[in-house]
Amino acid sequence: MMEKRILETCFSPALYRPDENRESIVVIIDILRATSAICTAFANGAVKIIPVGDVNEALEYKKRGYLVAAERDGYVLDFADFGNSPFNFTREKVEGKIIAYSTTNGTAIINLSSSAFMTVIGSFLNIGAITKWLADQNRKVMLFCAGWKNRFNIEDTICAGAIAEKLMATNHFSTICDSTLAAMDLWFLAKADLRGYIEKVAQRSRLRDKGLDDCIEFCLTADFTSTIPVIQNGVLVDNIL
Amino acid sequence: MMEKRILETCFSPALYRPDENRESIVVIIDILRATSAICTAFANGAVKIIPVGDVNEALEYKKRGYLVAAERDGYVLDFADFGNSPFNFTREKVEGKIIAYSTTNGTAIINLSSSAFMTVIGSFLNIGAITKWLADQNRKVMLFCAGWKNRFNIEDTICAGAIAEKLMATNHFSTICDSTLAAMDLWFLAKADLRGYIEKVAQRSRLRDKGLDDCIEFCLTADFTSTIPVIQNGVLVDNIL
Repeated sequence: MMEKRILETCFSPALYRPDENRESIVVIIDILRATSAICTAFANGAVKIIPVGDVNEALEYKKRGYLVAAERDGYVLDFADFGNSPFNFTREKVEGKIIAYSTTNGTAIINLSSSAFMTVIGSFLNIGAITKWLADQNRKVMLFCAGWKNRFNIEDTICAGAIAEKLMATNHFSTICDSTLAAMDLWFLAKADLRGYIEKVAQRSRLRDKGLDDCIEFCLTADFTSTIPVIQNGVLVDNIL
Repeated sequence: MMEKRILETCFSPALYRPDENRESIVVIIDILRATSAICTAFANGAVKIIPVGDVNEALEYKKRGYLVAAERDGYVLDFADFGNSPFNFTREKVEGKIIAYSTTNGTAIINLSSSAFMTVIGSFLNIGAITKWLADQNRKVMLFCAGWKNRFNIEDTICAGAIAEKLMATNHFSTICDSTLAAMDLWFLAKADLRGYIEKVAQRSRLRDKGLDDCIEFCLTADFTSTIPVIQNGVLVDNIL
C-alpha cells in the first residue's frame, strides 16, 4: 500500500513555482487547443513534436524539411504546413513524421516545468489513459493549467477538475489545495452539459471570432486516444518509455 | 442609462496587472481575516487604519502612541495591542482611534492597486453596502482576491462571486472574464451551506491549527455593517468622501 500522494493544481504559468515541483509529475493542460492537438498528432502516428518558441526558429525547421505547425493569435503563419487545430494533425499528414510546433505560450510552460520530475500532456482526449497511468506512479501530481496570457481560464480548469476527480476516486491521492478543490467543483457543475458550459468561456468567443471553434466539441471528447505524450529533453514523444 | 461596465476578477496578486486597472475601482477581498477585520474596525468607530508592512515600522507606531494590530503567521507580535482577528476590533478598543495594522500581504496588495482609480475594501460584512455603491459608480470594477502567499484561495473567490452575482443582477455590468464566471459558479455551489463549504478550504485548516478559527462564522455574515473602507493616500478611512 503506497502512501497517499499530494495532488495540486496551478491555474496559470504566473502562479507556477518550479522549486516546489521538482519531485512532481507535471501535467500540462491547454485543451483549446495545444494539448488536444498534441494528443491527436500522436494518436495519428506522429513520431516526435519539437516545441518551437520563435517564428524564425520555426522557419528554420521548415527549411530543413520538417512539418511545421505554426500560428500566432489564431492565424496560420504563411510558411507553415498548417495551424494548431487538432483537425490538421490527420494520419495522412503526420504519420511517421517529426513536427515542429510553434507556440510561444507552450514553449514558456515547457521551460517552466523542465525542472519537474517528469512532464506529460493532458487533455480530455487522453484523460482515461493519463489518469490510469498517474495513479500507478508513486509521485506527487501537479495539474498545470496553461491559461491564456497568464490568466486563469475555465476550460483548462474544468479538465484539471475532471482529472482530479478520477485521481481522487482511486484513493491514492490527497489534496488540501484550494485550486484542486475549486477545479473539481467547477467540473461537477460542468460535466452534465460540458458543451453548454464551455459556451460561456472567453476562449470560446476568441476562437469563434476567428472561425476556429469547429474543433471545440472534439476537444471535449473523452478517451479519443490512449497516448500519454511526455517531454524528454525538451521534445515531445509518444508515451513514457 | 449608463453603458454597461466591465466586471473582472483577479485571483492572486501574482496575476494582478496595474496597467489594466488605472480606470477601475478595485475591491480588495481578503475575508479570512484582513478585510473582515478592517470592516469591523470601522463599524466600531475606528477613525483611520494605517497599513504597515514592516514589523519595525509597526513598533515605531506603537512608540508614538498608536493602537497596533500586528501578527505574523497568525501569532500576535509581543509589542502589539492585539492581533488581526475581527473580534479584537471592539468598540471599546477602537472607537475614535487611529490603528496601525501590520500586514505584509495586505501592504503589498495596497501598493499594487495604488495606481487604480480607487481602491475599496470588500468582505461579506459589508457586501450589501459595497455592491450598492459600486452599482452607482460609472466605473469598471476589479474584484481583487488577496489569496494566500500569491496562491488562489476559495474563500476570497466565493466572496468575489457573491459580489459579482449582486452586481450582474443590477444589469449595469457585463463580464467575459473567466475568473468572474468561475467565482460566480463557486458561489452558486457554496451559498446554500456557506459554513459547510468553507470547512474544506485550506485557510480554514491553517486557522484551526492555530486556534484562530473562532471568527470564521462571523466573517461569513452578510451585511454586519454599511462601511465602505477606502484607501486615500495609502491610508484606510471609513467611507468615500
